[in-house]
Amino acid sequence: MIVTAPYLMFLGDVPDQLAAKTAQGIVDWRGEWCLGQLRLPGCKADLGIPDMTIAEAAAAGVRTLIVGVANAGGVLPDHWTSIIVAAIEAGMDVASGLHTRLGSKPEIRAAAEKHGARLTDVRHSTETFATGKGTKRAGYRLLTVGTDCSVGKKYTALALEKAMRARGLDADFRATGQTGVFISGRGVAIDAVVADFISGAAEWISPEAMPGHWDLVEGQGSLFHPSFAGVTMGLLHGSQPDAYVVCHEPTRSTMRGVQHPLPSIADVIDLTQRCGALTNPGIRPVGIAVNTEKLGESEARALLAKLEAEHGLPATDPIRFGVETIIDRLVRDFPDTRRLTHA
Amino acid sequence: MIVTAPYLMFLGDVPDQLAAKTAQGIVDWRGEWCLGQLRLPGCKADLGIPDMTIAEAAAAGVRTLIVGVANAGGVLPDHWTSIIVAAIEAGMDVASGLHTRLGSKPEIRAAAEKHGARLTDVRHSTETFATGKGTKRAGYRLLTVGTDCSVGKKYTALALEKAMRARGLDADFRATGQTGVFISGRGVAIDAVVADFISGAAEWISPEAMPGHWDLVEGQGSLFHPSFAGVTMGLLHGSQPDAYVVCHEPTRSTMRGVQHPLPSIADVIDLTQRCGALTNPGIRPVGIAVNTEKLGESEARALLAKLEAEHGLPATDPIRFGVETIIDRLVRDFPDTRRLTHA
Repeated sequence: MIVTAPYLMFLGDVPDQLAAKTAQGIVDWRGEWCLGQLRLPGCKADLGIPDMTIAEAAAAGVRTLIVGVANAGGVLPDHWTSIIVAAIEAGMDVASGLHTRLGSKPEIRAAAEKHGARLTDVRHSTETFATGKGTKRAGYRLLTVGTDCSVGKKYTALALEKAMRARGLDADFRATGQTGVFISGRGVAIDAVVADFISGAAEWISPEAMPGHWDLVEGQGSLFHPSFAGVTMGLLHGSQPDAYVVCHEPTRSTMRGVQHPLPSIADVIDLTQRCGALTNPGIRPVGIAVNTEKLGESEARALLAKLEAEHGLPATDPIRFGVETIIDRLVRDFPDTRRLTHA
Repeated sequence: MIVTAPYLMFLGDVPDQLAAKTAQGIVDWRGEWCLGQLRLPGCKADLGIPDMTIAEAAAAGVRTLIVGVANAGGVLPDHWTSIIVAAIEAGMDVASGLHTRLGSKPEIRAAAEKHGARLTDVRHSTETFATGKGTKRAGYRLLTVGTDCSVGKKYTALALEKAMRARGLDADFRATGQTGVFISGRGVAIDAVVADFISGAAEWISPEAMPGHWDLVEGQGSLFHPSFAGVTMGLLHGSQPDAYVVCHEPTRSTMRGVQHPLPSIADVIDLTQRCGALTNPGIRPVGIAVNTEKLGESEARALLAKLEAEHGLPATDPIRFGVETIIDRLVRDFPDTRRLTHA
């Protein structure tokens, strides 16, 4: 699915900042696309960007109204409908991360039909994909994998994109989850795809590219997560990564939502190599990204040094210490990584 | 999904016997449920059961009209609609394996609403599942796995059910594909489930059962198939099998639909153990099922003897030589397998 920038961020009247986490992620990574926010009376979230009316946003050139908030049950409250309709009437598309489909509200559907607006529900896949073919495509791919869900796979891929571009390297973040789709304006919430087409969708997400170009694919789940490993497996096969980064949260004792213990980083490397070799025999790890926010700085540095020694890979906390050491390794292992011609 | 027997098998006017393969499978395994067949002029398929009109079928007690044929594109031809409507008006439910949803035809939908008939499209999942929990459930489970798609996983599970029941053992086939759903009257086409819910659907398919009872779960795909391994992985985790049988076709050189070579049986055992241990640390292989139809009998026997020696497991062709040796191993390894009280 495609979401066209620039954006007006609609926050409704959500009760706290946490409910605007998706919207905040978009502002953090694509601040230049987020021209303003629209908040209803009672809204307790604030993205720290200018408040705008629909008319002001339209005048500023906004192309899409983003409903990037989570509220109880993921429903679309009736009293938000008139704002969405007004945005459509002002010429905007609308993209939503709610469970409720935008088109399920008759007023919204009618307005979109009348004005030719595109309604995008990023939680629901509407594209038809082919089944995965497993054929090698040109261009390089890096996938972030993890010991668990929610261990920094999206953040790591985005941090790599930012730092690689800063070095003049040709790299694109590829989104596989709803926040990522808003951030990159393109992608698929791969966990919403019909099971038969997981790897086919992953092939669509990171299509053939220029030799030396890197797609930095946002990972999902974990090969060791009893709820979601099927998604992880199909994403691994379809992404056919040349390189991967293992993401980890060192203080977690059981996997998210279940009672299973976390696998070790060595387990993840071993099984990722094993399964990833099916579609890319050259697959190799290039780094370990650890979320150390619950550790003191010296404790964090000691842990990272220990992991580097154990695995022979750069280990870093992308938020605390950046991802430069991982890029150093990537460029060393893949010396024909492409440089941006305009850099 | 649930499909209620007995059945009237609707064959339409399909051009050959192959198009009625699903219907034939139902008759082969559940002949007692298939009271008759209904064929339109020009139909070139024949299930070898009595031809019946809708009225005759209703009088005989048929509960469900089964559209168990495949035609070009999986569409439902307009000229089949009146028969389906007539079945509904005679009090039947309708279950279809076509891509076209029954309810997409206004006449069918209207008749179903009027008469309270259940329309089941086995290719499309309508149930809402929870995500997989990975928690150990009571009862035993056996999963058929494979070196590839279409290597006899459904047949092997059904043959095991038949032979175990004949020995007075408490075992139920559990369907994960459309033909299997028709054969067992219950199940889910797991490749049609939303990716996030693969293992959750597998948990629903083989729920908690009596200690010593066996669910014989129809496997799908292969952990080594680049198109479908995600489905296979989620099904493995959700089924949490105590035992598995590896299914294989020895003359195939590349995997179905792609250019990848077949994995070895040893590869499949190794990766199935590795991944299956996540939700059942006691997982173990109990046999190898080989489709030897392209081999002569002495060649087939020699291959099976070689596989038995190599892997220390019973190896058989379920069609040619039955599955008794696999059941012997299963009962040896799981001596508290439950006997049917009425046997």
